[in-house]
Order: sequence, then C-alpha cells, then structure tokens
Amino acid sequence: MSFYDQLKFDANGLIPAIVQDASTKRVLMMAWMNRASLEMTLKTGKTHFWSRSRQKFWMKGETSGHTQTVKDVAFDCDGDTLLIQVDQIGAACHEGYQSCFYRSVEMPGSTFKTTEERLESPEQIYAKK
Amino acid sequence: MSFYDQLKFDANGLIPAIVQDASTKRVLMMAWMNRASLEMTLKTGKTHFWSRSRQKFWMKGETSGHTQTVKDVAFDCDGDTLLIQVDQIGAACHEGYQSCFYRSVEMPGSTFKTTEERLESPEQIYAKK
Repeated sequence: MSFYDQLKFDANGLIPAIVQDASTKRVLMMAWMNRASLEMTLKTGKTHFWSRSRQKFWMKGETSGHTQTVKDVAFDCDGDTLLIQVDQIGAACHEGYQSCFYRSVEMPGSTFKTTEERLESPEQIYAKK
Repeated sequence: MSFYDQLKFDANGLIPAIVQDASTKRVLMMAWMNRASLEMTLKTGKTHFWSRSRQKFWMKGETSGHTQTVKDVAFDCDGDTLLIQVDQIGAACHEGYQSCFYRSVEMPGSTFKTTEERLESPEQIYAKK
C-alpha cells in the first residue's frame, strides 16, 4: 500500500512538514508541502516545499545553499503531519540561526529570550549567490 | 515585550504546536492550540490543545492519564509555529505508540513500515478510567 493513501492534505492541498536534524535531533523548522513538493522531495532526496505566502514551489537552500538531504520521512497516526529527518547544511533558518525555533518563552511569564547564537547574518547567507 | 505579540494565529485562531520529548528529543505529536489553550498550557504547565475535529478544548492525557509536563515553549522565526519540550507520561499517541510518527516511508519507493513497538493497545489506554 502506498503511504500517499495514508495522508490527508488539507483543503488547500497542503500538509505540514516538521524538519528535524537527523543527528542532533534539533527541530529545525516547519513548512508546508503539497503533493508535488513531497514527490519531488522523495525523488531528489532534497526537501521541497510550497510557500503559502509566495504561492510558490521552492527547494530549501535554492538561494542560500543551505540544502537538506532527506534521511527519513515519517507521518503521524492521523496522516495529517509529516516528520522529516535531514542532514542540514548551514543554518536552517533564514534569519541565520541553526533552528527557526531560536526563541523561548521565559516561564513563568510571557517575555522571551533568544536561546541560540546566530551563525550568519541574513545578508551573509543571501550574498552567496 | 510579550511573546504573544510575536505569534500569528491563523484565520481560525489556531497555531500548530510540535511536541518533543525533552529528554529523548523524539518528536511525539503535532496538535493545534488557540490562545486560550496556550495560556492554559503556560498557566498549568500541562499541554492543552484545541481539537479541530471535535471543536473542543482538551488537556493531553485527560482521558488516558498520559499527560505532558511542559519544560520549554519556543516559537519560530515567522511566529506561526510552536515547539514545546515536555516530559511525557506513557505513550503520546492514542494508538499506543510512544510517538504519533511511528510509520516511515520505505525509500526509494512509496511503501511504508512501522518503526516503533506499540507500548499499549488503545483499549488498554482508555480502559484506565
């Protein structure tokens, strides 16, 4: 049975994909895939997504060079979320942090703090090309 | 500045929350929160969500006893996804697996395999109360 039969894409044909570093287990980012980007991800071994804001198909790292090589693609009990293990080149976050989740709430309370060092500035990342 | 000002809830007032085991770093599940469930999560230290299918506020483990104690709440660069570190009691998945992501694609190809042992049957989990 194809795993595609287990998946539920939403009303816009999208499914959220959590991306995790295969080695460190750090959760790097969450982005959305449509069926075409998932197929391309499996075919090429590099993560591809659908940008809801830009309404555009994109390969992670196509501009920055910070590509993700896929090691495992898992899906959840409800079939409505993907979990993808990757080898990440460089910073996953376009802000230059290893992970997009570089800020945490200071509990108790509702202020927040930055929990990671910035690896590169966005200018450094996007000046490469 | 409150971290709530950094968050973007979607058109339905919801934000996806990735839940990760604080010790093993296994990604356990993904569920949705509205502002009230996020506030209750921070207030009580136990994860609360909004069920889209049941249109209902719920505390994880309220029936199964498999509660999640919050260790950290992070949010991503776009402010549209949460990452919550927890101490998980028992199986996180209502199917009795440690993680909801207990199935992976067999690459290359599109068949899939189960990658975890089932800890309990759903009948065992929900017969507790």
